[in-house]
Amino acid sequence: MRIKVGVLGATGSVGQKFVQLLADHPIFELSVLAASERSAGKKYKDACYWYQDTEIPENVKDMVVVTTDPKNKEFEDVDIVFSALPSDLAKKLEPEFAKEGKLVFSNASAYRMEEDVPLVIPEVNADHIELIEIQRKNRGWDGAIITNPNCSTICAVITLKPIMDKFGLESVFIATMQAVSGAGYNGVPSMAIIDNLIPYIKNEEEKMQTESLKLLGTLKDNKVEFAKFKLSASCNRVPVLDGHTECIFVKTSEGAEPEDVKEAMDKFDPLKDLDLPTYAKPIVIREELDRPQPRLDRNIGKGMSIVVGRIRKDPIFDVKYVALEHNTIRGAAGASVLNAEYFVKKYL
Amino acid sequence: MRIKVGVLGATGSVGQKFVQLLADHPIFELSVLAASERSAGKKYKDACYWYQDTEIPENVKDMVVVTTDPKNKEFEDVDIVFSALPSDLAKKLEPEFAKEGKLVFSNASAYRMEEDVPLVIPEVNADHIELIEIQRKNRGWDGAIITNPNCSTICAVITLKPIMDKFGLESVFIATMQAVSGAGYNGVPSMAIIDNLIPYIKNEEEKMQTESLKLLGTLKDNKVEFAKFKLSASCNRVPVLDGHTECIFVKTSEGAEPEDVKEAMDKFDPLKDLDLPTYAKPIVIREELDRPQPRLDRNIGKGMSIVVGRIRKDPIFDVKYVALEHNTIRGAAGASVLNAEYFVKKYL
Amino acid sequence: MRIKVGVLGATGSVGQKFVQLLADHPIFELSVLAASERSAGKKYKDACYWYQDTEIPENVKDMVVVTTDPKNKEFEDVDIVFSALPSDLAKKLEPEFAKEGKLVFSNASAYRMEEDVPLVIPEVNADHIELIEIQRKNRGWDGAIITNPNCSTICAVITLKPIMDKFGLESVFIATMQAVSGAGYNGVPSMAIIDNLIPYIKNEEEKMQTESLKLLGTLKDNKVEFAKFKLSASCNRVPVLDGHTECIFVKTSEGAEPEDVKEAMDKFDPLKDLDLPTYAKPIVIREELDRPQPRLDRNIGKGMSIVVGRIRKDPIFDVKYVALEHNTIRGAAGASVLNAEYFVKKYL
Amino acid sequence: MRIKVGVLGATGSVGQKFVQLLADHPIFELSVLAASERSAGKKYKDACYWYQDTEIPENVKDMVVVTTDPKNKEFEDVDIVFSALPSDLAKKLEPEFAKEGKLVFSNASAYRMEEDVPLVIPEVNADHIELIEIQRKNRGWDGAIITNPNCSTICAVITLKPIMDKFGLESVFIATMQAVSGAGYNGVPSMAIIDNLIPYIKNEEEKMQTESLKLLGTLKDNKVEFAKFKLSASCNRVPVLDGHTECIFVKTSEGAEPEDVKEAMDKFDPLKDLDLPTYAKPIVIREELDRPQPRLDRNIGKGMSIVVGRIRKDPIFDVKYVALEHNTIRGAAGASVLNAEYFVKKYL
Repeated sequence: MRIKVGVLGATGSVGQKFVQLLADHPIFELSVLAASERSAGKKYKDACYWYQDTEIPENVKDMVVVTTDPKNKEFEDVDIVFSALPSDLAKKLEPEFAKEGKLVFSNASAYRMEEDVPLVIPEVNADHIELIEIQRKNRGWDGAIITNPNCSTICAVITLKPIMDKFGLESVFIATMQAVSGAGYNGVPSMAIIDNLIPYIKNEEEKMQTESLKLLGTLKDNKVEFAKFKLSASCNRVPVLDGHTECIFVKTSEGAEPEDVKEAMDKFDPLKDLDLPTYAKPIVIREELDRPQPRLDRNIGKGMSIVVGRIRKDPIFDVKYVALEHNTIRGAAGASVLNAEYFVKKYL
Repeated sequence: MRIKVGVLGATGSVGQKFVQLLADHPIFELSVLAASERSAGKKYKDACYWYQDTEIPENVKDMVVVTTDPKNKEFEDVDIVFSALPSDLAKKLEPEFAKEGKLVFSNASAYRMEEDVPLVIPEVNADHIELIEIQRKNRGWDGAIITNPNCSTICAVITLKPIMDKFGLESVFIATMQAVSGAGYNGVPSMAIIDNLIPYIKNEEEKMQTESLKLLGTLKDNKVEFAKFKLSASCNRVPVLDGHTECIFVKTSEGAEPEDVKEAMDKFDPLKDLDLPTYAKPIVIREELDRPQPRLDRNIGKGMSIVVGRIRKDPIFDVKYVALEHNTIRGAAGASVLNAEYFVKKYL
Repeated sequence: MRIKVGVLGATGSVGQKFVQLLADHPIFELSVLAASERSAGKKYKDACYWYQDTEIPENVKDMVVVTTDPKNKEFEDVDIVFSALPSDLAKKLEPEFAKEGKLVFSNASAYRMEEDVPLVIPEVNADHIELIEIQRKNRGWDGAIITNPNCSTICAVITLKPIMDKFGLESVFIATMQAVSGAGYNGVPSMAIIDNLIPYIKNEEEKMQTESLKLLGTLKDNKVEFAKFKLSASCNRVPVLDGHTECIFVKTSEGAEPEDVKEAMDKFDPLKDLDLPTYAKPIVIREELDRPQPRLDRNIGKGMSIVVGRIRKDPIFDVKYVALEHNTIRGAAGASVLNAEYFVKKYL
Repeated sequence: MRIKVGVLGATGSVGQKFVQLLADHPIFELSVLAASERSAGKKYKDACYWYQDTEIPENVKDMVVVTTDPKNKEFEDVDIVFSALPSDLAKKLEPEFAKEGKLVFSNASAYRMEEDVPLVIPEVNADHIELIEIQRKNRGWDGAIITNPNCSTICAVITLKPIMDKFGLESVFIATMQAVSGAGYNGVPSMAIIDNLIPYIKNEEEKMQTESLKLLGTLKDNKVEFAKFKLSASCNRVPVLDGHTECIFVKTSEGAEPEDVKEAMDKFDPLKDLDLPTYAKPIVIREELDRPQPRLDRNIGKGMSIVVGRIRKDPIFDVKYVALEHNTIRGAAGASVLNAEYFVKKYL
């Protein structure tokens, strides 16, 4: 018996990735697709401009899209919804679902930094999920909102976690080169990015600099005590379809050699025994000098592994390396789905 | 009366840029085009696959290419040669020209780090040119080799110079996003870079990390005392035709606010009174949040200005910003030509 | 004394090209910039996201944008307006300007195929301008609307005109590869076109197939008798910023050899004695096997020349060749400006 | 028991596709990888720069590459070799293999147009394989050479076959937009194709214009009588990684309506009962106005289906449409493998 789930914002860029991941899922049964008024009432295949390079899953094609209203009868048996809503809509609509008793696994940024909302990467801080107890108490909800971080944050934090655990973290510089899919299908006009790059992504650096500290923080007395290291990011959009690449420079507390960092990353595999369907080895290390590369490596671990290369001594800090993430899978839809799988395994 | 000059490696990527810059130059008269045996004897228009988006200059089209041998009679009246040779050929051939009394203004890396060879950006360390006295003595040459730095080094160092002068430099992190033209016309296959990037450029990080210290060093007793700050680079190739973009994080000795850094950069204009034909304001600052962008800003100052944007407070160091350089003009051919113009103005 | 002109739709993609062409024009003085309510009242530099690779012209930067209403006092002394309006707005607004006595040189498709509206390429059918007499009578206007064709039509028709004149035309097949700028700045998302092409452009084939026959038709008794040949087009969007490329296969009435076609094209230069500022040789022929190429050849004749290459014998028809046009200059703003220059020269 | 096979030119672009297709093949066992002297003796993973977006197959990684010499003992038990050799090497080496009794399924152009060499697309002219009887007699070989056509020819001919069978063919115009992978990994520099296209591919139009007539010709008395229709092609390289798109205009002998052509194409499935492992429905029709698109549709049928869209009435001929082919699978390696599968099924 699979658990019935819905997707909010099902026709958009991240929504389509949710559909791909959930259409044939061993634990979840994709039962409701919600979108805007304009799409509601239409078959999914007609409501959405499907631009993935695989076909719309057969069993989803003809599902009729509903409005994003938890009172729709289609949501009745649904316990879990995945939110691919834009931030402003998420702000308004996710609480309505939580109030109606739904567990909202959200990719939106709206509630990530709220004190009583877990911001979770299960390999990194799965225990933060327990914040939902407080959240329910505070807000009088039967359901809850559980968020995953911003795409570029996930990439960095997964690689920083094994370093922090072993050597402590002091300072981290990150320069990102982010794919256009991260801005949504219509987000980056071709006129803006062919033979070009844009050295700015609205709010992205702020998200990386704050979300990281919450993720790597410690749950104490129902609160997250933020991690103490410092992080500085410079974020860029480049003409790549999928795959965020990050140049990361790290100063540890205790000093670390590249070989030790590599070993720590390679051994980092905290959930391997849980048998979660979407789980893959969180960090895959490549030895070639010129890897990872987004087009060649973004699908490793079905898009769920962070691919790391060029781990080398840094002339100022301890170590520098390059990390790559499939931004719409590991950095978005896949992150939410993994959160839900973990939740189901642990708490249901 | 203009000074007769030649170009070595005239048919290649940087060679073509030299030809564009010199074809109609107020001080220099382009008299000799040298290239490999294969090209020698042919008209320039036939010897070279011209792929600039302007036509081959009329007065150059039918010039006959000669071999890269200073004993060719065509070099007789030529005092200055510009070298766009690949490093291995430069190593062998540039000394032959210097021995024959030519001043070699070289874009090649072969001699940059030799103790008695000036590595010069005229706005930054013009006085290092005096090293050629020692060079001539050491090597028994009538001519000399004067080099300009690697493209990505120039971009960074020009922006660091006014900061160092005012606040002192301690540490600098740089992540680059470099154009494919930097690798030469055939350097980056389209199969390698469409929908992709490559987080590695051979020897590039090493060049940035060493050349910068020589450039910002001090000439004392006929030697360059290297600067003492530390620099760490991570270099990437991106699908951009021309224009290197760099994310730079700077820690100064005395502390510096973004506004002060901006002012120092904006005022930096050391050679403005020399009236050098290729000179442009070395740093142009853009206030828009999403600039500089390579396609839109690479031609500012006819490709000779470094365009800087996003100067902002850094959460770890003092300041971070984004710098852009036209890599084949300011970062290559234009750098050599400016060196020669400065030399002529000062010493001839 | 220059003639005061205005631009309608001044902030958009084609509007910006008009501004570039008119900012420093010997005959026209750019006096009014009109755009939507949202932009009106703002300085041009603030109203428009300027994404050309040259700066906003100094004398235009601070001009205050007005609404697209001919009764605005700013239009008082303006006799000519250039319209870069989208088709639906053009339909409504252009007649209002014509009614107020303005000559509207329009790049919009709204009125192109109306019986009493001239559709003009001055090198091809300048005499069609006389239709405005009828137009004024029919519609009771003091002003008039004079249109230029769709971008891909212009490219083809300019090359077909000298062939038709010399050999007669029977059938023409055309496959286009059109730049993304043709769809406007936001028209083609990068997600839609990186590593991709789209073999469809709405209404484009229809426009080419009908507009061509009007353009190459004959003005008789105040009517255009359409040309009788047949044209079939297949239109594609490709990841090129500027420059439409067309593969053209032509069957003439009398038979034609490639050399004859080349000669006819090369000699085609009907307005060379009029000294029109925006005029350039309408067809430039390249002999290289692999030209024209959009990035390398689109700026020939300041973007006003059609560049033709590969004129060769066709195994079925008489001849085939490749033609290239800068779509936002020769194919849009430049076409309107040239129409106006011709009009001024001939009729004012 | 699978049949042992080898790949000649195994490290190159098409060679890697052969390896992907054969590494885990139900009928063939990939036993020998041959390449140049430079690669021989190395493990495949070291000899080849693997740039596919999936990993090197585990069972191939450590295979030791041999020279392209049929006398190498590794070829002893091998009956079939697939040739991804460049044309000049193919000319010399393929006969050596045929002489040693090997069946050479070749993607090279060297022997395609030889009178006694079958040029085969199994769905189109499988019976031409019988030419090898004559070939063996003529040349005294125990083995034989069986070729598949040039990539862009295959795409066109598969779609023309059902039209010809039902309506007869008179004239066909084709304009292609071909992916960079068709030129090999290093074939098209990024400097040549970013923001650009190249309206010329050496010998490509000639290949399309001659190979098509042989493929659609009739085997009579051990000779191929060429088809009588005429074909004219104009070939272009565009910035797409994989996937050739073709605009095709067709005049039939008997006249044909778009709906009839669509039906004929859709029903065309001649080998569906043979159960060949690499076989997919040869033509898949898409109804959307803006399809096929290379990035979205090239992998349909695991890259073996030609995807056709926009079948519509032509104003001059009968019908026009757009066809798409994965050029390195259906248009190269997959074509050879399918030929071999068919051969094994029919003749072994």
